[in-house]
Amino acid sequence: MKVYLAGPEVFLPNAREVLDAKIALARRYGFTPISPGDLEIPAFETKRGHGLAISAVNEKLMSGAEMIIANLTPFRGIAADVGTVYELGFMCARGCPAYGFSNMASNHFERLMAYYGGSIQPDAHGRPRGPDGVAVEDFDMIENLMLDGGIEARGGVLVTREVAPDRLFLDLSAYEECLSIAARRLLAAPG
Amino acid sequence: MKVYLAGPEVFLPNAREVLDAKIALARRYGFTPISPGDLEIPAFETKRGHGLAISAVNEKLMSGAEMIIANLTPFRGIAADVGTVYELGFMCARGCPAYGFSNMASNHFERLMAYYGGSIQPDAHGRPRGPDGVAVEDFDMIENLMLDGGIEARGGVLVTREVAPDRLFLDLSAYEECLSIAARRLLAAPG
Repeated sequence: MKVYLAGPEVFLPNAREVLDAKIALARRYGFTPISPGDLEIPAFETKRGHGLAISAVNEKLMSGAEMIIANLTPFRGIAADVGTVYELGFMCARGCPAYGFSNMASNHFERLMAYYGGSIQPDAHGRPRGPDGVAVEDFDMIENLMLDGGIEARGGVLVTREVAPDRLFLDLSAYEECLSIAARRLLAAPG
Repeated sequence: MKVYLAGPEVFLPNAREVLDAKIALARRYGFTPISPGDLEIPAFETKRGHGLAISAVNEKLMSGAEMIIANLTPFRGIAADVGTVYELGFMCARGCPAYGFSNMASNHFERLMAYYGGSIQPDAHGRPRGPDGVAVEDFDMIENLMLDGGIEARGGVLVTREVAPDRLFLDLSAYEECLSIAARRLLAAPG
């Protein structure tokens, strides 16, 4: 079963090393990993042309994959990497099993509480809002409800871990738990 | 043509008013708008059950839509709302025409330059990186390359505007430009 390994690891200083570790783990659990870092993109005349070529190759890789494991660890802010989220939505629309993990244990509401410095209050209808009046989702979910909901609707799980800050994009134990659960559910069990 | 109106407007204090204005504009340009704010969700026993029900209804609405216009204005940080991005990826995987707009004119690289306080430097291979060593996309794109790339590959455009800060999620001129371009390209032109 071909699994697309989505995540912001491609941006890390040691991207190749981390991607190779993810690839090796996926193989160990019986999957055929497809990783965006695998691709070679030819040089392009414009920056934009280069970016479009990477997008096209990633979409092609996804279209050949049968499931996704998305690293939804908050990236440069309080939410998941938007490139990864695009890919999660893409694979969910294709009806593929979808799994996710986050190396922060805090859920969406807790991260927004920190973002607003604790100033979240219910409005007249009981809906929680920040001091800017903008509503805050409080659904016992790790991320925006479309992400948690999309994963659950495709039979997957969203695994969380609290890891040391300097291991935020390096610790692979939550990723490995996704592989372990997915292997039990999706790969033919021996006799 | 049924257009799904994705965006974080659903969280605004005056969400209904803004969504109704978007709906009216879409109709004026000849589209049949489908808006996540339209739906009525029954009360659920758990918060999580409630969130999952909203996710399921939104996915059903998307599955009945033929194109998407996504509000990709940076939301609570430097990137687009992840719920909206999930929906963009979802509709792109379905092969639907995809349009986007942002009410910040700054592109992805410029926002990251501000995020890193100007400390972006090329590494030994010429790839720009922040002081944390994490790579920065520099592709003359408004957002992560999967978003710009997905929209362009489906014949759409990503329109930007610089609007007054207090109109960031209220100004509909970039949205209206999406409608205008999409109407010319996608709706049967008279005579």
